[in-house]
Formats: sequence, C-alpha cells, structure tokens
Amino acid sequence: MSLAHVHGFMISLDGFGTGEDLSMEAPFGHAGARLVDWMKSTRFWHEIIGEAGGSRGIDNVFIQQHSPGIGAEIMGAGKFGPPGWHNDPAWKGWWGPNPPFHTPTFVLTHHPHPPIEMEGGTTFHFIDASPAEALKVAREAANGLDVRIGGGVTMLRDFLAAGLVDYMHVAVVPVLLGRGVRLWDGLEALEEGYHVETVSSPSGVTHVTFTRNGV
Amino acid sequence: MSLAHVHGFMISLDGFGTGEDLSMEAPFGHAGARLVDWMKSTRFWHEIIGEAGGSRGIDNVFIQQHSPGIGAEIMGAGKFGPPGWHNDPAWKGWWGPNPPFHTPTFVLTHHPHPPIEMEGGTTFHFIDASPAEALKVAREAANGLDVRIGGGVTMLRDFLAAGLVDYMHVAVVPVLLGRGVRLWDGLEALEEGYHVETVSSPSGVTHVTFTRNGV
Repeated sequence: MSLAHVHGFMISLDGFGTGEDLSMEAPFGHAGARLVDWMKSTRFWHEIIGEAGGSRGIDNVFIQQHSPGIGAEIMGAGKFGPPGWHNDPAWKGWWGPNPPFHTPTFVLTHHPHPPIEMEGGTTFHFIDASPAEALKVAREAANGLDVRIGGGVTMLRDFLAAGLVDYMHVAVVPVLLGRGVRLWDGLEALEEGYHVETVSSPSGVTHVTFTRNGV
Repeated sequence: MSLAHVHGFMISLDGFGTGEDLSMEAPFGHAGARLVDWMKSTRFWHEIIGEAGGSRGIDNVFIQQHSPGIGAEIMGAGKFGPPGWHNDPAWKGWWGPNPPFHTPTFVLTHHPHPPIEMEGGTTFHFIDASPAEALKVAREAANGLDVRIGGGVTMLRDFLAAGLVDYMHVAVVPVLLGRGVRLWDGLEALEEGYHVETVSSPSGVTHVTFTRNGV
C-alpha cells in the first residue's frame, strides 16, 4: 500500500516551521539557518553536498529516511520558491540543476506552469488541486511507492487536517523563533489518531514520530 | 546564592500550559488531566497522595526536584484558585489543609487578602507586586534557599520576559491541546541566555531544561 509520509519536518520549540519575512535571500525568513543547522552535521547532508564524513547517530538515522521507498513528492508553492517566483520564467527551484527529490514532484499552485524536467530524475509538475486530489495524482505517479508530503508549513497543516498523513517525523529544534508560521494550529487532539513516540538527540533536537493507528 | 527555579512546568506539544474554559470543576479547562497524567505514575506523586510504589525513572528524577532547596514559592492568582476565588472568603487553595509547598508562598494578586496559615509549613501571602519586587520579597522569606516560580503560564512568561529565571524544567507532553494559554509567546531567542538540554522519557514526555549562562 502506498502511504503518505512526512520526513524531517523541522519546527522550533515554540512550534514555528518557518520564520517571518521570507525572501529570495532568506528562504526561512528571520529564522535563518536555525531550524536546519543540526542537519548539516549528518552524513545524509554531507553526501548531498558531496563531502566525506558526517555523524551517523540518531539525527542521521531519522533524516536519511528522506528518500528510500518514496516515488513522488507533493510540495506547497512556498517551498518551491520565494514569494512571486511564478512571475519569473527562469525560476527552477532552490536546489540547482539536480534537486534532491529524484522523482516526480508536484507543486501545488494556483498559477498554471509547464512541467520542468531537471537532472537526476526530478520533474516538477504544477497542479491546482485539493490535498486529497493532489495525493491521488502523486500516488499514481509514485507507481506503488510512498508519497512524501514535503511542506511548507501551511500545506502540511492542510494535509494533517484532512487526515491524509500516515507517518510523520517532526524534528523539534530547541530555539524560540517567536514568530512565523505555526505547524500545530487547528490540529487539536491530532495525537488520538496516531501512535506517538519521542526521542531526544545529543544535538538537542527531539524527534517526534506520528504513526497512524492501524498502519 | 538564592536562585529562581521553575520545576515541573508542563506544556503540550503545541505549547499550551493550560487549556480554555478554566473553572472550579476544571482547573486546567478543556485540557483536563492530559498535561499531568504522566506525573501520576511517579513515586513523587505516590508519596504526595500517601500510596506505595511509583516509577523511579527519568520522569521521577525530574519531578522530585520540586521541593529540595526551595525556601519560598511565588505563584500567580490563576494558580491559587479558579476565576473569582478572591470573592470567596473560605477559599484556601486547591490543595486541602496541607498543601505541597511547606514554605512561605506568595500569591500575586491585585486584591488585598490577609495571610492564610496552613498545615505543614505553608503560609499563603497575597501581594500586589511586579515580578522583580515579588522575587525580592520571596528571596528574603526563603532565607538563603532558592525560590520556586510556580506559574501559571502568564505569570511564568512575565518572569521569563523580565530575565528573572535562573533554572527552568519544562515537561513537554505529546498531546495537542489546540487552544489555551501559550507559554512561549513573546520570548523570541530566549535560548540564547541559557544552556538548553532535552531528554525524552519512555512515557513520551520530553524534559527540557534551561540553565542560565554563568549560573
């Protein structure tokens, strides 16, 4: 069965998945690199940037789940580019010529846009669809593999509220951003539908996993 | 040196220290017992209610820090009683004749009230003071011991914002309350003044400690 997974979604201790004042120069706004710094120590990240080394402890064990078994990603428009990217015909995402998705990747947007084929197996498709419709399309493209729900925050919250997420790994980073976009808003008692586990890392990050009951 | 400590302050994964709709029957409002249930398994709690047994693992190790070395407590009016308690001359707190404080306990309120002497060493004093003024008064009463900042949420946030907390233990409970009073509002970058550690328990609770730099 093809499941919907969230991998390595990072939030602050006060629940923000991104900061305020997002821009081309500041993809996470005033949050800067504070939510992602812990990941840069891992072997997973070292491999992405083509460097040797990197930690292989609990942070790496969780974050390396990103790709195996995934046949498609769905992301929100705010993950694909900074505000206004759809007005720039040359914009192809933040990730350079070989993005780290390597599958069909569906960008949710109200602006029609032709597909973009990148190196390494990533093709960006742009669709205007509800969470349930998008998941159906991505599942077909995933060809029996799982679908990654990629975020950003608002888009993930919509998928959670619609009951579409089967497994979610959230990394809680011990910083207080104070402002930005909250992940948990409007999700009262979400845990009742899931088996929840928490485990902390020497890095200070707490990994929280939600596994849907019966999955 | 007499320090200001926070012990066993419980919040939900989405950051609420109490729920909505607080009343005499529901001291935590719609949160019910969800924030405190984990503590009821500990030996610390079993001793308070006079029963044998109880867990002695990480949850107990943290929660048993509540009393040793503490010479006074400061609490907000909302911890002492339900809304309107100051209109009830017979109200003496939630805790019965022998409250679990056993020291002078200062209740912050705008309503003048004579002190209440209880069994077991607890005397409630009612003062109308700023956080810094209250801490000064409580320190004198603590006679060289530390002062516990007892909450509720709004009161603790005021003490944190004023830079008055030297050590804080927060227990993050893996439930989503969805609404209530948030602990972290207005405390952007609080962690910069502290050494922060996180450790998770088999109960699912994550214990987060803030130790002020240089303390």
